[in-house]
Amino acid sequence: MYAVIMAGGRGVRFWPMSREKRPKHLLDIFGSRTLIQETIDRILPIIPSDRIFVVTSITHADELTRQLPEIPRENILVEPMGRNTAPCIGLAALTIMKKDPGAIMVVLPADHRIESEEKLRQILLTAADAARNGKTLVTIGIPPTGPVTGYGYLEQGPLKETIAGVSVYHVQSIREKPGAEQTKEFLSRGGFLWNSGMFVWKASAILEAIALWLPDIHQGLMDMDLSLGTPDECSIIEQVYGRMKSISIDYGVMEKADNVAVIPGDFGWSDVGSWDAIWEIASKDGQGNSSPNQARIIAVDSYDNLIQVKDKLIALVDVKDLIIVETDDELLICKRGASQDIRKVVEILENKKMTGYL
Amino acid sequence: MYAVIMAGGRGVRFWPMSREKRPKHLLDIFGSRTLIQETIDRILPIIPSDRIFVVTSITHADELTRQLPEIPRENILVEPMGRNTAPCIGLAALTIMKKDPGAIMVVLPADHRIESEEKLRQILLTAADAARNGKTLVTIGIPPTGPVTGYGYLEQGPLKETIAGVSVYHVQSIREKPGAEQTKEFLSRGGFLWNSGMFVWKASAILEAIALWLPDIHQGLMDMDLSLGTPDECSIIEQVYGRMKSISIDYGVMEKADNVAVIPGDFGWSDVGSWDAIWEIASKDGQGNSSPNQARIIAVDSYDNLIQVKDKLIALVDVKDLIIVETDDELLICKRGASQDIRKVVEILENKKMTGYL
Repeated sequence: MYAVIMAGGRGVRFWPMSREKRPKHLLDIFGSRTLIQETIDRILPIIPSDRIFVVTSITHADELTRQLPEIPRENILVEPMGRNTAPCIGLAALTIMKKDPGAIMVVLPADHRIESEEKLRQILLTAADAARNGKTLVTIGIPPTGPVTGYGYLEQGPLKETIAGVSVYHVQSIREKPGAEQTKEFLSRGGFLWNSGMFVWKASAILEAIALWLPDIHQGLMDMDLSLGTPDECSIIEQVYGRMKSISIDYGVMEKADNVAVIPGDFGWSDVGSWDAIWEIASKDGQGNSSPNQARIIAVDSYDNLIQVKDKLIALVDVKDLIIVETDDELLICKRGASQDIRKVVEILENKKMTGYL
Repeated sequence: MYAVIMAGGRGVRFWPMSREKRPKHLLDIFGSRTLIQETIDRILPIIPSDRIFVVTSITHADELTRQLPEIPRENILVEPMGRNTAPCIGLAALTIMKKDPGAIMVVLPADHRIESEEKLRQILLTAADAARNGKTLVTIGIPPTGPVTGYGYLEQGPLKETIAGVSVYHVQSIREKPGAEQTKEFLSRGGFLWNSGMFVWKASAILEAIALWLPDIHQGLMDMDLSLGTPDECSIIEQVYGRMKSISIDYGVMEKADNVAVIPGDFGWSDVGSWDAIWEIASKDGQGNSSPNQARIIAVDSYDNLIQVKDKLIALVDVKDLIIVETDDELLICKRGASQDIRKVVEILENKKMTGYL
């Protein structure tokens, strides 16, 4: 059993904490550990560190290596450019196949939060069992809590099997990011799960599926395969990536494949998609104020604020429902519920070419 | 014509910008000049710098000297301890009398804001004329804009004289800081003016009044008088101050004296008593946001905020009516209208002995 942590992404929604050089998974939003550190801490009880691979970009490789001393340097795979998840997963599968042709591969995003880690591990082990003897592509599905757009929706089919008390279902269909109307319909109909972006499959099975549904990308992977471990590795990967199309594994493979299974996971999941989401899941004091970094807070008649300020004393007087984020050179004050509009700030900075703040 | 700038006071209401070491008059809240610098800039057209005296405390003398290079060092009078305004004004009157026995003395607080400086100068010159030939104690009265408690109220008497088109009135009575009920009554009755704390009189006249109404303090001043200019000056002043009672010129003299006159001044006055008062008089952009220090602001759906942050980029998203003040080690976020409760923060800091933040 191997793990592949996908650590790409920019995290505009977490400005000013996330920056081009410091995307969300490298931030310690919830305390002393960063999201990628938490992701790895979470699976170490079931997957040893030398079987954990991380795929990242050249911009973040150094910081990531610094944050993950337990991961062998050669397990940090550096993509020369972002090409979405299909090439990323293909490269990782290829690398793992070379070490272990029968490997089972757990794919995890680097920047999610899980409440019940024990439950997650149980489900991953079950998923590995479900994937072990065949070509099944197992996804972890999240019971939806509302008609959220922006996620993929898995339509749950009939029961496939039960492993150690955990139910594994066929997947009838997958709809990537349906609109508001359709999302509402899915929820009222029932039987849909959110696509968590967590997958479990044999490395050989996903490579076969890529060969079937994304032959161009598979050809690119084969071109790279020959160079892996040779002195030309880097330059070949760069050439091939330059030619590959950018596509997610969800659109490129999962939506089309007919051998997809799903395990519903009720382990308290959040993709930590916005500052608002962070306030929802963060721990709070008796007045609803949340300050994960133990800032000193003097709150007078002030409630339900999210404070991300590192070293300062914070005094709040008669303020409610604010998101307060400070970095060395920026201060964001945002009403809770409006955090999706932080991207407008980033757009303005881009338009004004104030790149130092991005 | 001489000026005495009273530069004492702590400014708890301007925490965290004002601190024990940096009271309000030493802050550049409105731009590049501090309030005391603005106070002196304002009178320089009518009073030369070598006739301007500043009374301050030992804690602030160095910073004040740095901020006021145009004021001769010997014109900065240092009180060994705060004893309210009566001893302060007495010491200044004594010092000025030594230079010029016929001197007229303009007393000004160091931390007020005036909109129409030309009007103020006109009124001060008129007041000086009214004070020149006699013992009249001239005050500058402000037409009240609301039933504000915490000010002194001057009851305007009959017209005394008209000088260069400016009316000078007798003062019928003075009520220092009346309660809410009485303040409302004063306003509905009419004929009351706020005591601005600006006075004009002959140095000899105020010393006579102190001798009459505060004989103990006058005795102390006489004890100091003998030592002024001698090597013992400092130690004698310290001894005498230690014995003097702490009392304002308003309670101690003005309320009792029957030779008080008032000139109503409609020059746009503010005692800059709180962050809320600052927002009222500060210049604002089209969205009502005020940032006197030219901070870079990106405001998305955000209105009527007062921002006192020096070097950072400030991003506001969907926030209204906030007071945002940042120092090197503190950040205050306060709802506009609640700035009187900032003193609660200061009290908490005092109780917790977090003196580093005071």
